[in-house]
Order: sequence, then structure tokens, then C-alpha cells
Amino acid sequence: MKCYSEMNRDELMSEKNVLQGKYEEFKNEGLSLDMSRGKPGSEQLDISMPMLDVLSSESDCRTDEGFDCRNYGILDGIPAVKKMFADILEVSSDEVFVGGNSSLNMMFDTISCLMTQGAPGCEPWIKQGNIKFLCPVPGYDRHFGVTEYYGIEMINVPMDSNGPDMDLVEQLVSSDEKIKGIWCVPKYANPTGITYSDEVVRRFAALKPAAKDFRIIWDNAYVIHDVADEGDKLLNLMDECKKNGTEDLPIMFTSTSKITFPGAGVAVMACSENNMKSFKERYKFQTIGYDKINQLRHLRYLKDSSGLIEYMKKHKAVIAPKFKCVLDALESEVRETGCAKWENPNGGYFVSVDVMNGTAKEVVRLCKEAGVVLTGAGATYPYGKDPDDSNIRIAPTYPSVEELEKAVKIFCVCVKLAAVNKLLG
Amino acid sequence: MKCYSEMNRDELMSEKNVLQGKYEEFKNEGLSLDMSRGKPGSEQLDISMPMLDVLSSESDCRTDEGFDCRNYGILDGIPAVKKMFADILEVSSDEVFVGGNSSLNMMFDTISCLMTQGAPGCEPWIKQGNIKFLCPVPGYDRHFGVTEYYGIEMINVPMDSNGPDMDLVEQLVSSDEKIKGIWCVPKYANPTGITYSDEVVRRFAALKPAAKDFRIIWDNAYVIHDVADEGDKLLNLMDECKKNGTEDLPIMFTSTSKITFPGAGVAVMACSENNMKSFKERYKFQTIGYDKINQLRHLRYLKDSSGLIEYMKKHKAVIAPKFKCVLDALESEVRETGCAKWENPNGGYFVSVDVMNGTAKEVVRLCKEAGVVLTGAGATYPYGKDPDDSNIRIAPTYPSVEELEKAVKIFCVCVKLAAVNKLLG
Repeated sequence: MKCYSEMNRDELMSEKNVLQGKYEEFKNEGLSLDMSRGKPGSEQLDISMPMLDVLSSESDCRTDEGFDCRNYGILDGIPAVKKMFADILEVSSDEVFVGGNSSLNMMFDTISCLMTQGAPGCEPWIKQGNIKFLCPVPGYDRHFGVTEYYGIEMINVPMDSNGPDMDLVEQLVSSDEKIKGIWCVPKYANPTGITYSDEVVRRFAALKPAAKDFRIIWDNAYVIHDVADEGDKLLNLMDECKKNGTEDLPIMFTSTSKITFPGAGVAVMACSENNMKSFKERYKFQTIGYDKINQLRHLRYLKDSSGLIEYMKKHKAVIAPKFKCVLDALESEVRETGCAKWENPNGGYFVSVDVMNGTAKEVVRLCKEAGVVLTGAGATYPYGKDPDDSNIRIAPTYPSVEELEKAVKIFCVCVKLAAVNKLLG
Repeated sequence: MKCYSEMNRDELMSEKNVLQGKYEEFKNEGLSLDMSRGKPGSEQLDISMPMLDVLSSESDCRTDEGFDCRNYGILDGIPAVKKMFADILEVSSDEVFVGGNSSLNMMFDTISCLMTQGAPGCEPWIKQGNIKFLCPVPGYDRHFGVTEYYGIEMINVPMDSNGPDMDLVEQLVSSDEKIKGIWCVPKYANPTGITYSDEVVRRFAALKPAAKDFRIIWDNAYVIHDVADEGDKLLNLMDECKKNGTEDLPIMFTSTSKITFPGAGVAVMACSENNMKSFKERYKFQTIGYDKINQLRHLRYLKDSSGLIEYMKKHKAVIAPKFKCVLDALESEVRETGCAKWENPNGGYFVSVDVMNGTAKEVVRLCKEAGVVLTGAGATYPYGKDPDDSNIRIAPTYPSVEELEKAVKIFCVCVKLAAVNKLLG
């Protein structure tokens, strides 16, 4: 097959006819398939069922220190759980705060705290007028939702295979004190799946923001979520920051939402002593403590950071074939046409596809009519506005491989059909 | 024994000598007893251990509707859990939002939401200048902590055995649009243990606040927490509000923190459709959902609202003797001296003692020196300032009855010793 851009009008018409025929066939099957959200599939959820046996009515629910996890107390988490996550995030236990069931909630609380109380020694963001946030794009819709909820202006920063465009980040951050932060998913980025290069991490650590209260929201959601046998390595931002004396810049997050159970996992934040002090000043009014029984359940089930990492191999075994299924189909069905491009991620939860400019919404619409639900086009951009109408996020984990094979075939047909229609004008 | 106020100086001196002798004896025992926080004792925690067996690796974790609780989704709680709490709070399921592990956290989020986003159709509180909150006193220190954290000015409203002074509440609320809310623990109030009378509830429902965005924070923490065989009845505020067209006034809360496990329970909020819409607008950005596995665990263990109410009898059996122990000691040791007064609560978690004006801090200090930790004097007042230095909150649930007997004996001696010293000048 030729590249679409090299086809003449007749060739495109003939290609369109073939694609339209296939599309109608799929449509007639009356399918109902979902590649819209980064949800684990039920086979993945089954992996963690033994965790529900770990604590029983016979259990001693005390920590190593003798603290009864059934009662009130311990604001920042069971010490051994702090240690487990400190090792995963490569920080010290003192830099870790174990929260509730959702790192998104902790990020929301972080922004909320900075809005109304401000960073240490600074005015609350809400009193500083029209503040702004940098948003690497495509990015995570729920990040953008938090900043939009608080009326923070969002500025797009393009992503490439090394991470955000750091020339632009440096220029913006050093020149505009209204720019207060940046959303980052540094490993297996949502949705592109790339991992920030060492240079990008070093440049983040060396930032000289005009705003004293600039913060890097470092959402390390996929820190140990490899799909490839050889996972990516992410340089330790906190270490680099300490070399630069900028350790107050990053606020890090991760969770077990995609390790044990989404919604019934454990979320954590990690940050400098200075930042931690101000967040604890909030948390001590906000709650008496998070669910330590669930923390203990996780601890006894996963043991420690090595246990966690080993455990992820079970997930890899389930989801690697799903990623392969999507990437193989894209490779064999779409590559030659030149009408879309994508990364081959080594981990994470998504395959990000840039379809032909101006066709993303149409692809999503076509897929929906054929019974395949995708994340809304534009969702990976602030305000839901993809200026090129090009990016589509595929979430391959929730459907079975069989469903996925079917869904991705339909997707490929829709991508090509929308492109051909666009070229035909 | 005579009332202290009727004793002459010699009698007081002789009483002082007796008390001082007893006090020194206690001190020499080197005790370490804690009546400071409203924490369940370990015998109460043991009651709920079978809940840990309810879900196992063999369990089907789907709701009646077929929703898999192990995965993301369901922002406002499992339907049957909403129903269980709706029945307890005497509202409809639609008016219930099931949250995380802490009603305090939900109250914090509520205030936070009103601060930055405002009530429906109103300016955010943070943009309305110096706003104020009414605080029935003595009250719950963590309530006052939330409003203090947000810089909301707190105004004391005296409590009596029927609830807050409603003449004062009505006068303040109707005349000052900067007054935005009031903290209430309407049943078995923290700390006085009284339940708001029907008239008080009706007057709350009939409030005509100057502020369109005035809210009653109705923390029904002890809604089914009877200690007496015949528990108090609280009139349904939401019903009364509906009669008055004021259903946007109350925002209600409760939790299972003192039913199953503190920190590993389930918390809920209930409010009008109008309020719910604006809170959900926040929650949908704040989280994907709360811990539905723990909701399911509670549901399968407690079944429904009848199961919950029945379950509380187990707690009553443990804590009723503890309340009796405290009240008996106060009655036999302190009543005749006339130097303190208190309520006899039919439920809740506290006995609130008003010692002689100007001696509360001294009583707490004396107790501490003798190895008995009490909640700090003043803690039951906004800013920690009890204008009369009189109120002390006793939390009888955490120690064993044996420990409590000893601790309360010491407490009685300290109350009397401080009073005698005060009278002697």
C-alpha cells in the first residue's frame, strides 16, 4: 500500500470504498467495546484478590512499633508503608506522606492548599491574581480538570519523545512569575508513554522560576508499571534537585491504584521537609488519619518495595499482550498509509495516537457509531481543545485481548477512513 | 460534706489538707492514664474484627447492580450503602454521598469548597471579606480547627441542655450577612452530650439568615450512639427544613468511625439536591471515587440500617459501664461540694464537666502531674480560649473500667483541690 499523501484522487476513492465497506461490516456486528479509560481489566483485579485474605478476625493489627491500626492516629502513614513507598520513589521515609485511596485526591488537595494557604513564605495563589500552569500536551485530562476547577490558566507545552519541550518550559518559567506550576507524568507519560530523559529531569531540577512558589507536580503514577521486559529508567528528580538546592520544587505522587485495586489502593505524596511541613499543617486539620487497616493490608501482602516490584510482573503478563495487540495492528494496518503516528511505550497504561490533523473527533465519532468507545478527542488537552484535532488516547487494559483485537481493527479502519475523507475534501 | 461556698476559711484549709494528702498518694503511684480523646477502647475494636472476614479472595465483589467494586467508578457510593445511611439519617438516598474514611475530611472539603467556589449562585466565601462562623460552646475542637485554618472568625454561642442559645443564633444570623455557618453536633453533642430539643431543631429549620449562603454543618456523629437504654430522639432537620423551604441550609454528616473502625470506617454527607450538585461538581475533579471495597465490606457485614442500629448495642454494652463509672464518681465525690456541674448524657462519647470558674487549666495540670491526661482546658472553645476557664471534656471510652475508676478518682480530687485553692486565694 502507498502512503495516502502520495495517492491520487482515484486511488483515494478506491481506498475509501474498501474502508467504507469494512466499516459497515463492523457496524452491523452491533459491538460494544471500551478503550476509553485507563482501568485495569478484571484479570488484573483477580491478581490482587488474595490481599483480601491477609487480614482476618484473627489478625494482630498492630504495626512493628506496637501501634493498633484499628484506632485513630498516625497522620502520615504506618512507618513500614512509608518506607516501602520511599524506596519506590527513591526518597527518604521522612519525605513521604501516605494518604487515602487516591493520588488524584492528594494532588487536588495540594493545589487546594497552595490556592488558599500558599507555599511556605508566599501569598496564597488565590490572592495572586490570574495565575497559570504549564500543561505538557498531550497530557492527563484529570490533571487539567483540577487546574481548570480552580480557574488557573493553562498553557500548552508540547511533548516529544524526551518529555516536555524544556526550552519553552525554561523560557516561560523564568520570565513569568504568574506561572506557578507544571503537571508532569514523568515515567510512561499519560498518554504518550514516553519516559522523561535524564537531560529533561536535570533541566527540571535546574529550573530558576520567576515565581518563588513554582511547583513541579511529579505524578509518578506508572513508576513501576513496565510493559516491556526492559523497562525505562527515570532519573531521580529529588536527588538532582538536592544538587541544585531546588528540593522545594517537586511534589511527587504515586499509588497502588493500578497495582492492587483502583479505589481501594494506597496513595502517597513525597516532597521536601519544607513542603511537607506546610502540607501537614493542612492535613492535621483535614483528618485524624487515613485508612491504616488498608495500609496494613497492603504492607502484609506486598511486604516491601522489592515485593511491589516483583508483583508488577503479574500485571505485565496480563497487559503486555494487550499493548502488543494494539501496536501490532497499528503497525500492520496504519503504518504504511502514513496517516497516523504513535510511540511504542515500554510501560504505563496508554497508546497515544496522533491521527491526521483535523480528524481526531471524526475518528472518535466513527468508532462510537461502530460500538467502540474511545476517550473523547481533545480530552488530552487543557479545556478539551486539541488545536490540531489530532491526538487520541487508547487505553488497552480494560478489554480482553479478544475484544481488543476487534476494537483496534475498527479503530484502524476509522483512522484511515477519516484520513481519506479529509484528503478527498 | 458541706458545699464549698458555705465553708469558712478553716473548713476550707482542713479540706485542702485532706485533698492534698490524697493527691500526693495518687502522684506517688506513678500512673499513666488517658481520658483525653474520644477513641474507642480495644474491647470495642474487637467487636468489629469479624468484618475483616467478610470479603476474601473467594468473594464476588459486585454490587446488586452488577458493578465490580474492585475497579474505578461510582463517585457517590454503592447504592445499598447510600440507602443504609439514608435510613440512618432519615433522608433519601439521592441526598446521600458516601465518601472516604473520615466525616471530618468531608466537612473540611465542604468548607474548602464553599471558600473557593461558593454556595450555588453565591460568591466564594474567600472573596467576601472577613466572614464568620457561629460556634456553640463548649464544642468540638476539630470543627473549630477547620474554620480557624481557613481564617474564618469564630463567634461563641452558649449551649444549654436544649442545644445552642437560639435567641442569640437567630439574632446574629438574621442581622449579619458575614455569618456564613454554624457548627452543630445535634445528638449527644460533643462534649456536653445533650441532644437538641425539637424546638431548637424547628428554629434551625426556620432560620432566615441575612447571608444567602449560610449553612448549618450538622455533624450527626453520634446519631445511633446510645449509652442509655432509652436513647434520645432527635427531630429530623431535613424534614423540618422542607416544610420551611430551607432545605439548602443543612449539610449533614455521619460515619462509622465509632461503629466499625476509626480510620477504616465509611463517612457520608447528606444535603439537598441543590447543594449536592455543587459538591459533586467538586468531587468529580477531586477523585475518581472512594474505597468501594470498604463500602462493600461494611454493607455485607452490617446489612442495612437495622443491622447498624442492632450492632450499636454491642458498643453500648462496653461503654455504658464506663460512663456510669465517671458519672457515679462525680456524683459521690463532687456533687455535694457544689464546685462543678455536668450533664448526664444518654449517649455519645463524652462527659463535659464545668469546674469552678478559673480552675480548668489548673485541674488539667494537677491531673497531668498525677499521671492522668485530659483534653487540654480550653480545647472545647474556639481558639482554645475558654473565657471562664471552666470546661473540661472527659473521654471515658478509651481506658478500661479499672483504669477509668482510678483516673476519675484522681480527677475528682483535682477538681476539688483546685476549687479549694481558688477559694483560699
